[in-house]
Amino acid sequence: MNTSVSIIGAGRLATHLAAALAGKGIIIPQIFSRQLSKAAILAQKVNAEAINDLKAVNDKSDFYIIAVSDDAIYEVAHQLQHVISSDKLVVHTSGAAPSTLLVPFFRNYGVFYPLQSFSLDKAVDFRHVPIGVYSPISQNEKLLFSLGSLISQQVQCIDDHQRAELHLAAVFVNNFTNYLFHIGHDITNKANLPFSLLMPLIQQTVEKIKLSPPVDMQTGPARRGDHSTIQRHLSQLEVEDYKSLYELITKQILQLYHKK
Amino acid sequence: MNTSVSIIGAGRLATHLAAALAGKGIIIPQIFSRQLSKAAILAQKVNAEAINDLKAVNDKSDFYIIAVSDDAIYEVAHQLQHVISSDKLVVHTSGAAPSTLLVPFFRNYGVFYPLQSFSLDKAVDFRHVPIGVYSPISQNEKLLFSLGSLISQQVQCIDDHQRAELHLAAVFVNNFTNYLFHIGHDITNKANLPFSLLMPLIQQTVEKIKLSPPVDMQTGPARRGDHSTIQRHLSQLEVEDYKSLYELITKQILQLYHKK
Repeated sequence: MNTSVSIIGAGRLATHLAAALAGKGIIIPQIFSRQLSKAAILAQKVNAEAINDLKAVNDKSDFYIIAVSDDAIYEVAHQLQHVISSDKLVVHTSGAAPSTLLVPFFRNYGVFYPLQSFSLDKAVDFRHVPIGVYSPISQNEKLLFSLGSLISQQVQCIDDHQRAELHLAAVFVNNFTNYLFHIGHDITNKANLPFSLLMPLIQQTVEKIKLSPPVDMQTGPARRGDHSTIQRHLSQLEVEDYKSLYELITKQILQLYHKK
Repeated sequence: MNTSVSIIGAGRLATHLAAALAGKGIIIPQIFSRQLSKAAILAQKVNAEAINDLKAVNDKSDFYIIAVSDDAIYEVAHQLQHVISSDKLVVHTSGAAPSTLLVPFFRNYGVFYPLQSFSLDKAVDFRHVPIGVYSPISQNEKLLFSLGSLISQQVQCIDDHQRAELHLAAVFVNNFTNYLFHIGHDITNKANLPFSLLMPLIQQTVEKIKLSPPVDMQTGPARRGDHSTIQRHLSQLEVEDYKSLYELITKQILQLYHKK
């Protein structure tokens, strides 16, 4: 496969994605970043040309992947249309932005969305990063699917509506979960206990939902309808925010399992 | 070590605990359960006598571990006092019940609290189950610590207040987290997407908090103060419960990171 993919962006996602693609023999002609030094660091790793001017993007790649922040996608696409032809396959990598952001500029547009957050300093095994691909043109979607399958074991066609829902679900299971971990950390810390005491329990909760739907795995006082423990917990809670959150989630779990 | 531990209870915790102790050469003279058949199944595994009458508990064990539901601890201890002497070391295994529940009956009381939830059909590696031990008498606490250290790599002295806080923290990081997973499952399910797409992200969130406090690992629209994404998510949410929970957690994260 003699495919070539130019990458617009040199941030965390662009860096890991370029490395994964290059590792599978994909040619990366160009890496763009507004900061030439950033482009250069990544370009060196994947044997690409570093550029910091969108006018210097050449027209010869098979794919163009726009891996920039959501706010910048439209402006980048707007500028790209002046240097590459409108029938090139151009995709963005955002979970939140609709694919239609690219409609004014390119006939062959789409999305190539790796569902993971990346840190620059930590290696990523892309095989285990799910990738959602989308294009309204089935032939393009097949091409994106093939490209994704080169680097990931879990590629799925996901339209704009589905992607928006997936992004929303990720906020609950990732961002909001981390906030609950923060509360647990704060409570143990104030009681002079190491948070690490809770790690096996957290790990176990995650292992369980790999086997069964979370709704079948729910435990705890609200699940049991154990009102005396709930009352004791509420009386223990001194931070108002934690208390209101405890009350709301408990109310919802009680309704889910104990409604008449 | 020729220690002997009789176990009152034959449920999930009792079963895994008895097996772990027996595996380390601890003698288990007796297993009690109200249902003789349950006691017998466990007793056979650990070479113990099965009994279903607390009057048949003999006085010769070094430790007595009451591993029954919270509601039953007091009544069991009340009955036990008639058959074993008040200077025996008797502990319960509850995260929620105070140790003082045992005060009316035994001079040498305490707690032996494995911080994990167990299923009957799944093997448990007790080495990675944290155990909180407590006795107001330091010599007893040392004995409990030694017993715990036989089977677990993470034994910690935890007083009643700390244990109550730990139990509360566990509700946040375990029970409430599972509820968020349920919401993520429901949202993906309704969008015809497999929940498994979210598993790598969930796993990553857990890996990150092993390295840094969750407060430093927070990501997402609320962390960024990205109000346009928050508004879009709220307009996507059709289930009233999910919407009110999204609003509350978002408000709390915004306050935590963006307060003036």
